[in-house]
Amino acid sequence: MGTSRLKTAVLGASGYTGGELLRLLSGHPHVTVTTVTGDKSAGLPVTSLFPHLDAVHALVLEPLNIDRVLKKVDLVFSALPHTTAMEPVAKCLQAKIPVIDLSADYRLRQAETYEHWYGTPHTHPALIKKAAYGLPELHRTTIRRTRLVAVPGCYPTAAILQLAPLLAHQVIKPTSIVIDAKSGASGAGRSPALPYHFPETHDSITAYKIGRHRHTPEIEQELDLIVAKNSAPRKRKAARINVAFTPHLIPMNRGILSTAYAVLRKPMTSDDLNHVYAKFYKNERFIRIREEPTTISPLHVRGSNFCDICAVIDHRTNHVVTVAALDNLVKGAAGQAIQSMNLMMGFPEETALTTPGVFP
Amino acid sequence: MGTSRLKTAVLGASGYTGGELLRLLSGHPHVTVTTVTGDKSAGLPVTSLFPHLDAVHALVLEPLNIDRVLKKVDLVFSALPHTTAMEPVAKCLQAKIPVIDLSADYRLRQAETYEHWYGTPHTHPALIKKAAYGLPELHRTTIRRTRLVAVPGCYPTAAILQLAPLLAHQVIKPTSIVIDAKSGASGAGRSPALPYHFPETHDSITAYKIGRHRHTPEIEQELDLIVAKNSAPRKRKAARINVAFTPHLIPMNRGILSTAYAVLRKPMTSDDLNHVYAKFYKNERFIRIREEPTTISPLHVRGSNFCDICAVIDHRTNHVVTVAALDNLVKGAAGQAIQSMNLMMGFPEETALTTPGVFP
Amino acid sequence: MGTSRLKTAVLGASGYTGGELLRLLSGHPHVTVTTVTGDKSAGLPVTSLFPHLDAVHALVLEPLNIDRVLKKVDLVFSALPHTTAMEPVAKCLQAKIPVIDLSADYRLRQAETYEHWYGTPHTHPALIKKAAYGLPELHRTTIRRTRLVAVPGCYPTAAILQLAPLLAHQVIKPTSIVIDAKSGASGAGRSPALPYHFPETHDSITAYKIGRHRHTPEIEQELDLIVAKNSAPRKRKAARINVAFTPHLIPMNRGILSTAYAVLRKPMTSDDLNHVYAKFYKNERFIRIREEPTTISPLHVRGSNFCDICAVIDHRTNHVVTVAALDNLVKGAAGQAIQSMNLMMGFPEETALTTPGVFP
Amino acid sequence: MGTSRLKTAVLGASGYTGGELLRLLSGHPHVTVTTVTGDKSAGLPVTSLFPHLDAVHALVLEPLNIDRVLKKVDLVFSALPHTTAMEPVAKCLQAKIPVIDLSADYRLRQAETYEHWYGTPHTHPALIKKAAYGLPELHRTTIRRTRLVAVPGCYPTAAILQLAPLLAHQVIKPTSIVIDAKSGASGAGRSPALPYHFPETHDSITAYKIGRHRHTPEIEQELDLIVAKNSAPRKRKAARINVAFTPHLIPMNRGILSTAYAVLRKPMTSDDLNHVYAKFYKNERFIRIREEPTTISPLHVRGSNFCDICAVIDHRTNHVVTVAALDNLVKGAAGQAIQSMNLMMGFPEETALTTPGVFP
Repeated sequence: MGTSRLKTAVLGASGYTGGELLRLLSGHPHVTVTTVTGDKSAGLPVTSLFPHLDAVHALVLEPLNIDRVLKKVDLVFSALPHTTAMEPVAKCLQAKIPVIDLSADYRLRQAETYEHWYGTPHTHPALIKKAAYGLPELHRTTIRRTRLVAVPGCYPTAAILQLAPLLAHQVIKPTSIVIDAKSGASGAGRSPALPYHFPETHDSITAYKIGRHRHTPEIEQELDLIVAKNSAPRKRKAARINVAFTPHLIPMNRGILSTAYAVLRKPMTSDDLNHVYAKFYKNERFIRIREEPTTISPLHVRGSNFCDICAVIDHRTNHVVTVAALDNLVKGAAGQAIQSMNLMMGFPEETALTTPGVFP
Repeated sequence: MGTSRLKTAVLGASGYTGGELLRLLSGHPHVTVTTVTGDKSAGLPVTSLFPHLDAVHALVLEPLNIDRVLKKVDLVFSALPHTTAMEPVAKCLQAKIPVIDLSADYRLRQAETYEHWYGTPHTHPALIKKAAYGLPELHRTTIRRTRLVAVPGCYPTAAILQLAPLLAHQVIKPTSIVIDAKSGASGAGRSPALPYHFPETHDSITAYKIGRHRHTPEIEQELDLIVAKNSAPRKRKAARINVAFTPHLIPMNRGILSTAYAVLRKPMTSDDLNHVYAKFYKNERFIRIREEPTTISPLHVRGSNFCDICAVIDHRTNHVVTVAALDNLVKGAAGQAIQSMNLMMGFPEETALTTPGVFP
Repeated sequence: MGTSRLKTAVLGASGYTGGELLRLLSGHPHVTVTTVTGDKSAGLPVTSLFPHLDAVHALVLEPLNIDRVLKKVDLVFSALPHTTAMEPVAKCLQAKIPVIDLSADYRLRQAETYEHWYGTPHTHPALIKKAAYGLPELHRTTIRRTRLVAVPGCYPTAAILQLAPLLAHQVIKPTSIVIDAKSGASGAGRSPALPYHFPETHDSITAYKIGRHRHTPEIEQELDLIVAKNSAPRKRKAARINVAFTPHLIPMNRGILSTAYAVLRKPMTSDDLNHVYAKFYKNERFIRIREEPTTISPLHVRGSNFCDICAVIDHRTNHVVTVAALDNLVKGAAGQAIQSMNLMMGFPEETALTTPGVFP
Repeated sequence: MGTSRLKTAVLGASGYTGGELLRLLSGHPHVTVTTVTGDKSAGLPVTSLFPHLDAVHALVLEPLNIDRVLKKVDLVFSALPHTTAMEPVAKCLQAKIPVIDLSADYRLRQAETYEHWYGTPHTHPALIKKAAYGLPELHRTTIRRTRLVAVPGCYPTAAILQLAPLLAHQVIKPTSIVIDAKSGASGAGRSPALPYHFPETHDSITAYKIGRHRHTPEIEQELDLIVAKNSAPRKRKAARINVAFTPHLIPMNRGILSTAYAVLRKPMTSDDLNHVYAKFYKNERFIRIREEPTTISPLHVRGSNFCDICAVIDHRTNHVVTVAALDNLVKGAAGQAIQSMNLMMGFPEETALTTPGVFP
């Protein structure tokens, strides 16, 4: 069976997302990670960065040399930071090696949008259209056919999944969306800095990048697509959604709770609303719709690939309020990346992703 | 000096708010707590419930007998639960003993609103109009003249303070308000229950009572008042604000971060916005306006009576987004109660409340 | 394959240990949980108690009727509380159904020791000797042959595993042992009570049951056995170890860090000490020996069946100091129970237990 | 009154200890902080580092120039790091300006001990004997007479206070002491680094510097002194205590819980033991002796200058086990520094230190 296993590399394996890819892939029956790169940690065993992988992975980090990597593997996961993934990903495509990119570099369909929000020119704008946006629940067919998956950001995964049914079924006014999201600190990465120094994050909660977080254009792009797909052709042009998006840092390691608000187009019952969600996500293994908002918590999805969603109607104010919980490192990153890889490679979609959350 | 000190009672002293009144009053130069009541804990020394008050208070809890209490004290703080404070507060007024009520029983000016949200008849509707809403920044004059202060809830304190300048200066559309608030677990009181059992709250965040939290009518009442006061007379009737209010439980002991969203009436600059707040709260000792949202955190006000506020404009979506932080047990309860008492009694308003927050 | 799967019951499935058995067994290829009991929660679906198991288990809790259970299953896990497991376990043995008991009821080899520490008569003292102490690393052969496994307590698992090599190799003076252990709050169970109410546990650490925790006799029994096995026959009688054991409650959900101290019998080098551990646990899949104490943390074993251990010599004071970390709900309870079951049933020992810890 | 206030400087004011000095001194009626230094933060207002001091302190940090400082102030607090305080402190003494040094530079009476543990020569060994060890409960008289106070480390404060009565009354064998201490992360300072990065500290507990933490010689020095003072003269030479000391990092911001173990010299009752403590600390304002160990927690002393202590006898193993809790930034640093300053300056010892802990 060893010979039939897919050989994969994880680029940028020293961060939390890299570690999570290694953790989850250790349970994949058809994949072996054979190469891990990390410039600053080159030469170190993975276990010196990740003691939890002791006795699980015996890999040693090497400096990133994409040409060398491409000779050794069948598929590449890139957990490189934004702006640094453009080149290596392009090389993968040239070499016809499938690549799953966890950065933002190929998520936005308009190069100029990318350039505006990320402050740097896109060096391979022609490749953007080859990328599938790696949210299987919305783009399963495209992902199956692509060689480049751009894995969504953690906040967008929650926000898009919780809002998609409402827009697809024209339940809400698209221009009225407010998203108030809360994330654990692993979302900020593994580089020490004062805002994530334990005594500054613990017992604290702060809003940051109000109205200017880089995940905003991703959310808007995908919501626009949904609106466009579900509108009469001549109305499509008008569908430009702007969301008021405020992320918060909260004292948890993992997990996002995203609370989204939107104005109802016309009155509806809670039962009808639940029906919209149940139908939209009917056969989705990783989406769980529940009626009681207090059961929607990062604690119930920790370490798992589930996204739990609840929506309620606030009749007094004519709003839908929806909460979604996911693990930012799994459904919001590494798990979703593996889910996409499973689709690309023809493995059962849930392979290596069936473990329930670690509660409590 | 002992004889000149005000003798006070704390009713319902066994909960967190009671403990906080005792902590703060231990530093008040003009007040002595001489009586503490707690039915379930009657006979126990305060220090068996609150080891942190060991060597600070030597009081013993007695069962609540309001007539007996009224013979012994000059002023009453009631930290009794909602619906159980109506009677004792009425007795205080009968006996002409000033009373500061931390429950919701006298906060709402319409008895029917109270009855709708609290599910019980108001037994003393005639007394409601004698109550001052104990938010000194907005009702200082009334508080000075009253014998009954109804101390605001913790969420309303944050929400009202952060929204008042926007409504007073007609910056926002009153019907567009969304309030997404996050509170530490002490806000839920000291009675053990599964949602606050450590392993269920830690590493978790949940939304609860979406669109139906009892603090909603308080917020709306006070915002309505501000709008009315700042409108032309004939428009006043129309001013009925409904807020979409979602509280969240987060893994902290103390503190609230309230994030509020509203649509701008007309474009304005950030400088202008900051000016609105600076002017509105110019001489307020306990309100701190800052320009950088990441400095607004419960960690910076922990244990103190400050409310820190920041407002920013999201030009893309035409929203004002404002964050406010306070300690739910201090500015959101015991501290605000003492601030009101200081006003009622003619003490300097900040007496016993000058300690900065305990950071980190 | 469905027919060849082992049908199992989980008694007392509504607590954290029960939930953890369900989580881990959902990944076991040869086992299906078909029955779950819980008196207080009878009639409820498992998912109403454990939202994290939504879409994973569709079981409904039934009241405990052991005779009925025994007709339906091939093997029983009992997660019933101490003192209430004696009877049901005895019934399992009568019915020749293998049983894995996670309570303390059959852990202690002397009925009188049990009665002293648990304050109740043992109703089936004759069955005690049929029980294997479910610590596979020390009792693998016995576990393979038994029908009754008494799964060790969480603290004893850590303490015994970290001290066994030192006693087996006569490195330390058996009478000099001090164990200072720290546990997350899930170790106290799922019943709400003031000491585990979030605001009382968070930002706190307390020592409890100093010198009188019920796990003490278990630790002493097993350490005694090791000393006896490794002593000259005539010295065996003398080997009565008393350990000074202090457990602490710390603000985490899961995990134990156990720090043990003992006086060296004679000087040795760190290398020699590491060699003792490496040799003792040479082929143990779930024991990881490391040289750097700061890598030993509950965070690196969270959700996994690993026990990580480090030992260092404090030459100044002639002590060995050893730290061990494990997840109290996995290696300290449900995982170890499954490890024992795998041995009893002839499955590979690590089945369903290979997932690494969820870090961070 | 302004002219009669003591003008003080805080050197190294940008760290947590500096911030805590500023917080506590803001409530001191006889002291004004007029100068704050911080090389890296020179030019910044204190409030940009410490938003919690907004509206409390309006100071601006200046680069450290000790000669300049000494012309402006009556007394100096030095919160400079170890090894960098030697010179400025010496300059204070030359200038006859009283100085309170929170570093370790003048704590150890033997220069060679300092040099061994801190790895650097002591540049002013002759000044060491001028320093008083700033633990008022044990050195009150000396502190009153000195111009240089060396404020104890946070761990030593707890360990010495909890063990002093046992050694003074010859209750325990001095050579049998094991100290297992647990500290919140603020003890590690404010410089970001991976071990204190939120996701690495949260949900974790680790032992570090086992047997080689720099606070060890301080503890031993002070315990030796107590033994010597309470021994017959000819036995004094023999009294060289070595303690097995293991610090742990736990997921809290503030606070230490120190658990110490020692072998009883002869049997005694719990009552006798409590009597020893009660007597030893009879008139000590900041030491609270309690009989129930679960009431000893950092949560009950947070933000306050109290040290809470409990001692119990483990009759089975013939040990005394004692737990002590304090706030590492207050009684373990800034509070103790102010307590010493009050003594030096003739202010009531408790001035600015009477606030009880912020619970919960």
